[in-house]
Amino acid sequence: MTFTAQILTLYPEMFPGPLGFSLAGRALEEGRWSCAPIPIRDFATDRHKSVDDTPAGGGAGMVLRADVLARAVDHALERAPDAPLIAMTPRGKPLIQRHVRELAAGPGLSILCGRFEGFDQRLFDARQIEEISIGDYVLSGGEIGAFALLDACIRLLPGVMGAASSGEEESFEDGLLEYPHYTRPQLWEGRTIPEVLRSGDHARIAAWRKTQAEAITRSRRPDLWERHRGAPDPPPSGARRETKKD
Amino acid sequence: MTFTAQILTLYPEMFPGPLGFSLAGRALEEGRWSCAPIPIRDFATDRHKSVDDTPAGGGAGMVLRADVLARAVDHALERAPDAPLIAMTPRGKPLIQRHVRELAAGPGLSILCGRFEGFDQRLFDARQIEEISIGDYVLSGGEIGAFALLDACIRLLPGVMGAASSGEEESFEDGLLEYPHYTRPQLWEGRTIPEVLRSGDHARIAAWRKTQAEAITRSRRPDLWERHRGAPDPPPSGARRETKKD
Repeated sequence: MTFTAQILTLYPEMFPGPLGFSLAGRALEEGRWSCAPIPIRDFATDRHKSVDDTPAGGGAGMVLRADVLARAVDHALERAPDAPLIAMTPRGKPLIQRHVRELAAGPGLSILCGRFEGFDQRLFDARQIEEISIGDYVLSGGEIGAFALLDACIRLLPGVMGAASSGEEESFEDGLLEYPHYTRPQLWEGRTIPEVLRSGDHARIAAWRKTQAEAITRSRRPDLWERHRGAPDPPPSGARRETKKD
Repeated sequence: MTFTAQILTLYPEMFPGPLGFSLAGRALEEGRWSCAPIPIRDFATDRHKSVDDTPAGGGAGMVLRADVLARAVDHALERAPDAPLIAMTPRGKPLIQRHVRELAAGPGLSILCGRFEGFDQRLFDARQIEEISIGDYVLSGGEIGAFALLDACIRLLPGVMGAASSGEEESFEDGLLEYPHYTRPQLWEGRTIPEVLRSGDHARIAAWRKTQAEAITRSRRPDLWERHRGAPDPPPSGARRETKKD
């Protein structure tokens, strides 16, 4: 079964781009996923092929038109009715690995990439579109978000990663950041590989890695650590919950 | 002044890739930033040009060697001693817009992109490298993280965005998600542009947009909303200072 990626974009020539290399590139050649950019501009109807207009109420930049975008979206839905329709927006739900796993288990994705100031809100009011954000920063368009979302999904598709276990012992899969890695040379700039990793004692190694992953998560990401422990009780109302990060 | 992007990668041919289009691509042509991929493999010394080896202690995948990577890093530092050296890793500090602004105000970035299971930990112990994560999901390599980080920075470089105001009224800049946008046509599928936006009353429009941004942030991202409401008074000395924007 091929995981179908439809990408609605003003820059179809950006794709597959970085997804044409390495793991995702090999998976593309092997037919494990397909890459189908849909040029939004094809759905403009005036002779200028316009897709955007000035914001109602004033302000900087341009807004993507609901009518043009809806035609592109409807076309994508017709071609892949079962694929979730996702827009990459900073107002979207923050992407997390669990969601990636769910999406990777599906038939594919239709991803709408914005540019300029964003989309006319009526598009979201009138069509079933899930908004996803890849993080709390602003990008010049949705395409890089689409690369991130697709890459995260593609590596989880059956047969894409070499060792079956490679996707399991990594950051976020068990709610923890990953333990530190070491490899040869044994001694480098006076620094050695921790003795336990050279012990051959698999139980000790597993215990050490778990302890390390927990310590790193606790110190770097108290927010993840709290969730991992299963956040005890919500704070009393009125008290603001402090998170240590940032 | 040119913002210098050095990217240490096993896939130098991925760059500038998506950053060669649109806003970032135009800025590249105009010399507002420069794109210098550094092929990590050039710093391997054996005849197989190997950059990775099996993980000490066992496990799936391959680990990037500290010795080879340190040579690449030292080369990057020599060429751009003032640029922060950043590794894109899932264990890194989550990227937020405030950090993007700080980095965009600097001389450039040297970005180390991992692959496989990650880097030998001793690289981070022995060199000053800042680990940054673009989100809580796992990618097949650091390159897509580098695209995100660079794109976020480049759009903020002087002269890159058309209207000076375009970077200010957007998600995260004031700790809020952005208000909804509308543009022509006035009537689409029975849906109209909110009356206030057609009123020409700039004060009313500004107030409406603020209310909308607050409502959207509160409902979609209670975490941002809590921080936005922030501690009204500066905390007593010794207490951690909360900042409102993310």
